[in-house]
Amino acid sequence: MRYIDFDKTNTYRKLVVHSFDYTTLNAERVRHCVVPMAAGLAYSWAAKPVEKPELDLLQALADEQELIGKYQAILEGETMNTGENRKVLHHLLRGQVGKPVIHEGKNIGAFYRQELDRFSAFADAVQAGNIRGSTGKVLSTVVQIGIGGSDLGPRALYLALENWAAAEGTHHLKAKFISNVDPDDASQVLASCNLEETIFVLVSKSGTTQETLANELFIKDKLTKAGLDPSKHIAAVTSETSPLAHNPAYLDSFYIDDFIGGRYSSTSAVGGVVLSLAFGKAAFQDLLAGAHEADQCALEPDILKNAALLDALIGVWERNVLRLPYTAVLPYSQALSRFPAHLQQLDMESNGKRVNRNGEPISYSTGPVVFGEPGTNGQHSFYQLLHQGTDRVPLQFVGFTESQRGDDVAVDGSVSQTKLKANLIAQIVAFAKGKTDANGNKEFLGTRPSSLIYGKRLTPRVLGALLSHFENKVMFQGLVWNLNSFDQEGVQLGKVLTRKVLSGNSGDSALDAYSELLGIS
Amino acid sequence: MRYIDFDKTNTYRKLVVHSFDYTTLNAERVRHCVVPMAAGLAYSWAAKPVEKPELDLLQALADEQELIGKYQAILEGETMNTGENRKVLHHLLRGQVGKPVIHEGKNIGAFYRQELDRFSAFADAVQAGNIRGSTGKVLSTVVQIGIGGSDLGPRALYLALENWAAAEGTHHLKAKFISNVDPDDASQVLASCNLEETIFVLVSKSGTTQETLANELFIKDKLTKAGLDPSKHIAAVTSETSPLAHNPAYLDSFYIDDFIGGRYSSTSAVGGVVLSLAFGKAAFQDLLAGAHEADQCALEPDILKNAALLDALIGVWERNVLRLPYTAVLPYSQALSRFPAHLQQLDMESNGKRVNRNGEPISYSTGPVVFGEPGTNGQHSFYQLLHQGTDRVPLQFVGFTESQRGDDVAVDGSVSQTKLKANLIAQIVAFAKGKTDANGNKEFLGTRPSSLIYGKRLTPRVLGALLSHFENKVMFQGLVWNLNSFDQEGVQLGKVLTRKVLSGNSGDSALDAYSELLGIS
Repeated sequence: MRYIDFDKTNTYRKLVVHSFDYTTLNAERVRHCVVPMAAGLAYSWAAKPVEKPELDLLQALADEQELIGKYQAILEGETMNTGENRKVLHHLLRGQVGKPVIHEGKNIGAFYRQELDRFSAFADAVQAGNIRGSTGKVLSTVVQIGIGGSDLGPRALYLALENWAAAEGTHHLKAKFISNVDPDDASQVLASCNLEETIFVLVSKSGTTQETLANELFIKDKLTKAGLDPSKHIAAVTSETSPLAHNPAYLDSFYIDDFIGGRYSSTSAVGGVVLSLAFGKAAFQDLLAGAHEADQCALEPDILKNAALLDALIGVWERNVLRLPYTAVLPYSQALSRFPAHLQQLDMESNGKRVNRNGEPISYSTGPVVFGEPGTNGQHSFYQLLHQGTDRVPLQFVGFTESQRGDDVAVDGSVSQTKLKANLIAQIVAFAKGKTDANGNKEFLGTRPSSLIYGKRLTPRVLGALLSHFENKVMFQGLVWNLNSFDQEGVQLGKVLTRKVLSGNSGDSALDAYSELLGIS
Repeated sequence: MRYIDFDKTNTYRKLVVHSFDYTTLNAERVRHCVVPMAAGLAYSWAAKPVEKPELDLLQALADEQELIGKYQAILEGETMNTGENRKVLHHLLRGQVGKPVIHEGKNIGAFYRQELDRFSAFADAVQAGNIRGSTGKVLSTVVQIGIGGSDLGPRALYLALENWAAAEGTHHLKAKFISNVDPDDASQVLASCNLEETIFVLVSKSGTTQETLANELFIKDKLTKAGLDPSKHIAAVTSETSPLAHNPAYLDSFYIDDFIGGRYSSTSAVGGVVLSLAFGKAAFQDLLAGAHEADQCALEPDILKNAALLDALIGVWERNVLRLPYTAVLPYSQALSRFPAHLQQLDMESNGKRVNRNGEPISYSTGPVVFGEPGTNGQHSFYQLLHQGTDRVPLQFVGFTESQRGDDVAVDGSVSQTKLKANLIAQIVAFAKGKTDANGNKEFLGTRPSSLIYGKRLTPRVLGALLSHFENKVMFQGLVWNLNSFDQEGVQLGKVLTRKVLSGNSGDSALDAYSELLGIS
């Protein structure tokens, strides 16, 4: 396999701006420009500014950068996290795609499967009342304590499935989340819990995350003061080498390893414990099945049959050819209210890099800024800029035929779910085609590119496929750009300086002066 | 007053990129580069790439564009919303800054004051149990139904004050929000409420907002099915000419007028009813007092004494000279978790425009993309790109000396609030100064500009000042760019096309084909 910088490929110099006529967006194009995805989802790229010449170039780029071969190398356990000298095995959490991965004599897939079985049984036992709080009360609330990937992904997935679970009658424990080191975060969540009936899931791969350890002490203090035994109210998710592992201070511990990056950990115990407690083990395993199916779809070399690959390459076109520095994620589903925040981490932490996988500076743009809010809410907010601002922002829409709860009301001849979908469709066309008007203030230039991922209803299986789609999209983009998408050295300097401030001996007069402003004595 | 396009000013051609040495960020600079703000807040611009030559240019720009004079014109009721031929009077909600504004014989300030008095008394009556639900139960929950400015600002402010109110013992009604036309949104919120004890605040200036009317029918249906009288459970906030006004279907109606734009309406009844019900009238009036004080501070012509003006002009420098197309808002306060979403609307809907106040196309960049999440959460997410991505993103930090609840725990020699502040400070310096390293992957270029707004503790008064700061910042930027920051024609095309889709006769084959994909029959 050849790892070369994007601008050293033969295809790179052929990537120049082509004109695209957005008024060609008609029924035939909409019906034709669709790639089937896992779990019944589909990816529509009709409103993206690409036709056969651009797609041929993007296919050539995919082939030249050996994207599918490199994806297979990831699946087979090559050391693709070059900075940290680690394998990248989150796909293996969902199932075996390639051949078994053996590391130092250990079958990693079997290890992941064993942990899945362990926390599935744990969830069963809590839900059945076989594991209870220290005063014998059945546990009704789970509070996840973690930050970054231990928070954003699991929280987004929990919110995405709450309504589904209510409709299906499978909502077991209510989940809450504590992430920030801001003491008001933990204090507020704890004030809303009946501690006797609460189980905490403490999540830190290293077992040394400053925020999470501070919040652990915070809750232990509250549990103790309430006369409860913390060891009966806390389970840990960590690596086997961390101080949280095999520790009698916890009810139980569930393990991941260094081959699971934080932002890729939602399908490990990091997401699995809280989601299994909340919605049952079957729901979480359906989510894994959807993700696994999407992982298999991503092996297809033809970009017109591989949604994650095509989405990635169109994103490269927008970033490096059209030179658009951002992407908006716009799910028309309130359940996906925090999914953009998860994708923001996934994308910006993976590909927000200015050195290649060998640590050498590169001279082309990499990961864009990602932001988004659910529609229709965003329409009444930042869409003004998207329609009529001075810059173009590429858009990624997501929508579903049915609501999750099926509870709806007809007003003016249509139910709310139909209105929601009508708004989504209208936006795609409005962004693409615009509208001329003699009054410049009422004119819309159109030519705003967008894609649409659509499906029947947001279920665990569909959610798993959606999650995996974006993980694989980001992976393919990182491979095009010849990045290591799996480390995050950019978080380190802040940690070092924070410790210096807290030590009282920062060695930097600006830090000292800012400390005075903020009353750090 | 002369209204001219930014690129026609004399100052414009002098605005060229200057070099700036971020290593000059030392104690002296930190202590010197501070502008006092209202309510004890302060604006630190030490880590922004401006010194005397740049500041002289920005002062010249402020003077040439007559920013303070135009702000005074707004205060005095000139027709500054040129597109809709309306005055812009949200400042008047907080108090009289200029002379009284009379419109068609009506004293508008007196009208706003009257409505404030009316909904303050209403909140008192609900809290005292003098207004009750239709079965005689005391009302314990308020659900705001509104979208865009009727949701984002009030929701952000509610979340910002929940912990403060809990600590002060002034948390009366619990508030929830329904915004999206997605039926799962309303269904989920309603399922979490005891309807007998719930009051709804229905907010739509025009009384014709599709989402809000659909949700009104949704809740009325549920109330009726629960055997309750909807007219005893709903209050309206609207304009006097709307179908919701003077309507016996509601407990009461509170009024705003066309001079209050949605994204500027948090300090009107749109935010005032729900916040007064939740936290008491005194808290909301303190918020108004903080905003009023900030409005007065914004009259200062010297940019080094006017934080909103300086913040605006530095933003223009970053946008039009450094050509940076985005801004991140990073509050180190979990209470401000949704404040960035409010600012996203405020900024992007106000200044996401490509025509000037007369509707003529302009050829310079205007409003940036705004996004953000609270620290320290963001550090474990998208900060990777901010530190080590290929593009620079200007940053706006916010932080407080004290937490809101005062409930904290010491770990490793410091409480969580101190850790929170130490992280904030460390980030400012890390972003500015970076770190050299022989390993490119561990190198930080620094040179990332940031500002810091800081204060003692987030109270209603401080929150009002913070809100007004950003409103006035956005206003000043719009005036520099010669925009009308107070209309939003960009939302119209989507509404028109949505109605076409719902009519079943869209007249566009792409709309029809997308309708098929999403199962709209």
